Amino acid sequence: MEKYLEMISAGLYRFVNGQLMIEDVYAEEICKQFGTPVYVYSANHIKNQIRKLYNSFKKSHPLICYSMKANGNTKVLELIKKQGCGLDIVSQGELFKATKLGFSPKKIVFAGVGKTEQEIAAGLKCGIYLFTVESVEELKTIDKIANRLKKLANVTLRINLDVDVDTHHYTKTGRIETKFGMPQEQVSFILASRYDLKHVRIKGLQFHLGSNIKNSAPYLSALKKLKNFLRRVDFCPSVIDIGGGFGIPYKDEEIESVQQFGSKISDCFVENFPGVSMVIEPGRFIVGNAGVLLTKVIYKKQTNVKNFLIVDAGMNDLIRPALYNSYHEILPVLKKDGKFLKFDVVGPVCETGDFLGKERVFPDTIDSGDYLAVMGAGAYGFSMSSNYNGRLRPAEVMICGKTAILCRKREKMSDLWKYEC
Amino acid sequence: MEKYLEMISAGLYRFVNGQLMIEDVYAEEICKQFGTPVYVYSANHIKNQIRKLYNSFKKSHPLICYSMKANGNTKVLELIKKQGCGLDIVSQGELFKATKLGFSPKKIVFAGVGKTEQEIAAGLKCGIYLFTVESVEELKTIDKIANRLKKLANVTLRINLDVDVDTHHYTKTGRIETKFGMPQEQVSFILASRYDLKHVRIKGLQFHLGSNIKNSAPYLSALKKLKNFLRRVDFCPSVIDIGGGFGIPYKDEEIESVQQFGSKISDCFVENFPGVSMVIEPGRFIVGNAGVLLTKVIYKKQTNVKNFLIVDAGMNDLIRPALYNSYHEILPVLKKDGKFLKFDVVGPVCETGDFLGKERVFPDTIDSGDYLAVMGAGAYGFSMSSNYNGRLRPAEVMICGKTAILCRKREKMSDLWKYEC
Repeated sequence: MEKYLEMISAGLYRFVNGQLMIEDVYAEEICKQFGTPVYVYSANHIKNQIRKLYNSFKKSHPLICYSMKANGNTKVLELIKKQGCGLDIVSQGELFKATKLGFSPKKIVFAGVGKTEQEIAAGLKCGIYLFTVESVEELKTIDKIANRLKKLANVTLRINLDVDVDTHHYTKTGRIETKFGMPQEQVSFILASRYDLKHVRIKGLQFHLGSNIKNSAPYLSALKKLKNFLRRVDFCPSVIDIGGGFGIPYKDEEIESVQQFGSKISDCFVENFPGVSMVIEPGRFIVGNAGVLLTKVIYKKQTNVKNFLIVDAGMNDLIRPALYNSYHEILPVLKKDGKFLKFDVVGPVCETGDFLGKERVFPDTIDSGDYLAVMGAGAYGFSMSSNYNGRLRPAEVMICGKTAILCRKREKMSDLWKYEC
Repeated sequence: MEKYLEMISAGLYRFVNGQLMIEDVYAEEICKQFGTPVYVYSANHIKNQIRKLYNSFKKSHPLICYSMKANGNTKVLELIKKQGCGLDIVSQGELFKATKLGFSPKKIVFAGVGKTEQEIAAGLKCGIYLFTVESVEELKTIDKIANRLKKLANVTLRINLDVDVDTHHYTKTGRIETKFGMPQEQVSFILASRYDLKHVRIKGLQFHLGSNIKNSAPYLSALKKLKNFLRRVDFCPSVIDIGGGFGIPYKDEEIESVQQFGSKISDCFVENFPGVSMVIEPGRFIVGNAGVLLTKVIYKKQTNVKNFLIVDAGMNDLIRPALYNSYHEILPVLKKDGKFLKFDVVGPVCETGDFLGKERVFPDTIDSGDYLAVMGAGAYGFSMSSNYNGRLRPAEVMICGKTAILCRKREKMSDLWKYEC
C-alpha cells in the first residue's frame, strides 16, 4: 500500500497514523465535509506531473496540449493553464470552455474524426493553432469553410502508422483498421497533389498510438516509420504532433519512468526531425493519479459464496471498471486491524457490471459507514459520469496543501428533469 | 428491413416511398425540426406493449411496475402511468421524480442493493408498496429506520434461485455469485427467525433473473424452484415479484411471442401460487423498441482497409454497443439506390470503442448529410448518456400519431460548467 502510494504520488497521498491523507488534508475530513461519493484532485500532483514532462522532454521542447477530455473541470484546467500548457480538444463544447477560461487559441489543437462544419467554423473563428485532420473528407470540408470565412486553416494530417500497442482494444487507436487517421498512401497523395486546397496549410503530421502506453518503444517505432515515410514523400513538416497516451501505474507495477520515456522520445525526435516543433497531448498522465474517488460503504454483505462491500459510488460515477475492465486500487481511508478477507467492491447500480474492484483484500472489521478511496480516478472519471439509475453526479474537490476547495457542486434532484418539457 | 420493422413495431415504423416513418411522421422531418442526434419515442408503441402485457398475463393479473431506469423521461412516464402501471425504482432520484409525476406510492417497488438510510426513510415516508430487500444488512437497516419513523415497512426478500440465463454477463443477475439477492438458506433463516424485526412485514419474495431474456423457460424454472423452496420453509407469501428482464428483438430474430411468454408464466404462477399477487417489472420490453436514435452522417470515410460512416451520435449518447457489445439495427432515413458496401458506423468520440454498428450494409451512394436511424434505442439509451468529450446530451421527442412533441431540450454549452465553482 505504502509502496504503491509512494510510486504514484511521491508522498502526496500517504497514510499518517493509519489515516489516508491527500496532500495535507485527511481524506476522512473531505468525506465528512463534502459527502460521498466525491472526486478529489491533488493540485500538486498535477503540477508535479507537468514539471516531469517539461524536464524529461526538455531536449525537444514540446508544446504540451493537455487532452481535456480526460478531466475538464475548470479548476483543473486553470491550474494546467498556469503551468503554460495548451489544450487538445475534441468538440465545440470543449472549445467553448477552453476559450472561456482564457486558453490561448495558439495553444489549442482540435482532434476528432467527426468535426462538424459548425465546429470547424468555430475553431477557425477562434484562430486555433492546428486542426488534426482525420480524413480526406474532413480536409475538404475545412478548406470549404475556411474559404467561406476567408481564413487560412493550419492543419496536421493524422497518419496511421499501424503501430500496435499493448492496451485495451477500445483504446488502441493506431491500428490501420480503426476509424482514426489516414493510411500512409492517402497522406502521401494529399501531400503530393494537395487536392488544390487553397485555404488549408499543411503544417505537419500527427499520430496517436492509443491510450495508457507504458513505455516509449511504440513512439520510437512510430517516429522511425514517420521518418521513412517523409523520406519517400519529400515533405518537410514544421510540426509533428506525437499525440498522447502516456501511461501511468494503476497498481504496484513496473513501468518506464517518465524521465526515460521523455528523454528517449526527445532524443529520437531531435535526431530525426531537427528544427521541427513537437506537440504532445498527455491527458491521463497529468491527471490520472491526481484523482481519487472517495466513497462510503453502505452495506457489508456476506453470503456463503462471496463477500461484498456495497458502496455509494457506482458505474454512473466511474465507468472504467465496467467499460474497460480497468483496475483501480481501492484503499481504506482509515486502516483497521482484523483478519483479512476478500471482498468484491460494488456499487448500488442495478447491473452486475457495476463493480469497482473484484476480490480485494480488507480486514473483516470493515463495516458500513467506513470510507474507501478508489485510486487513479482523475482521468476518465467524472468526465464519463452519467445520471444512470436516477443518480446525481458527484461533487469534485481540489486539494492544494492544507486547503480543500469545492470545484463542482453535487447535482440536485431537479437536474434529473431539467430541460424536460 | 421491412420484415424487421413489422416484427418490432407492427407497422408503427415503416418505409413509405422509401422514407422512414415513425407513426405518421417522417423521420427526416424530425431530424430537420429538432436537429441530430435526437432520441424519438413512439407513444403508440409504448401503449401497445403495455396492452400486450396486460393481455398475455391476464390470468395472473400482475401489477406492472415499469422499471424506470430503462427510460425516465417525464413524457414516457406520464404515458405509462395513464396505462395504469406503477414503477420499479432504484434510487431516491427516481422516487422523487415518480412522486412528482403523481405515481401512487402503492404502486411503487424500491429495488437496489445499496439503498442508503436516507433513501429508505424517503420511501417509508412516501408509503411505497414494497422494498425489495437485497441483504440481511439492508433488512435490519429498514427495520431500524421504520422504528425511528414509527412506520411498518412492507418488504419482499430478493431470493437468489441460481437460474442461469443466456444474456450478457453484465446483465445476468440471477446467479449465486452476483451482488444481488440472498441465497436460499439466508432467506429461509430470515423467514424462520425473522431476526425479531418488529417494524418490517415480509409480504413475499422477489427474484430477478437478468436482462433481455427471450423466452419464458428461465421464469418457469425459477417459479418451480421457488415453489420447492416455499414448501421447505413453510411461508405463505401474499405477493411474488418475478422481476423484469423480458426480452425484445434487436434484429430479425426469432423470440417467443409475448402472448406465449406471458400466458406460460401466468399459467405456471396461478397453478403454483393460487391467490398470491404478482408483480412484474418490465422496462426494456415497454420502451426498447419504442425508441430510435436519429443521427446524421458527418463524413463518409473510405480507406483501403475499411469504410466508415462517421455520424454525429456517439458512445456518450448511446453506450450500449461499447459497454455490452449490443447490436442495434441501423436503417437509412431515406432509402437510396446504389451498389451495396459494408461500413462501420462510428461516432465522433475519440475512442475505438465509440461505434454504433460494425460491417453494416448501405448503398455506396450514402453520403455526408444523410440521416440514419439507430433502432431499439428506447431503453438504456438516453438514461445512460453522458457529457463525455464535452458533448451535449441530445434532445428527446415523442411521436403520437401525426404529432411530434419535444419532451427534453438539447443541452446547452453552459451545462458543461454548471455547478463549477
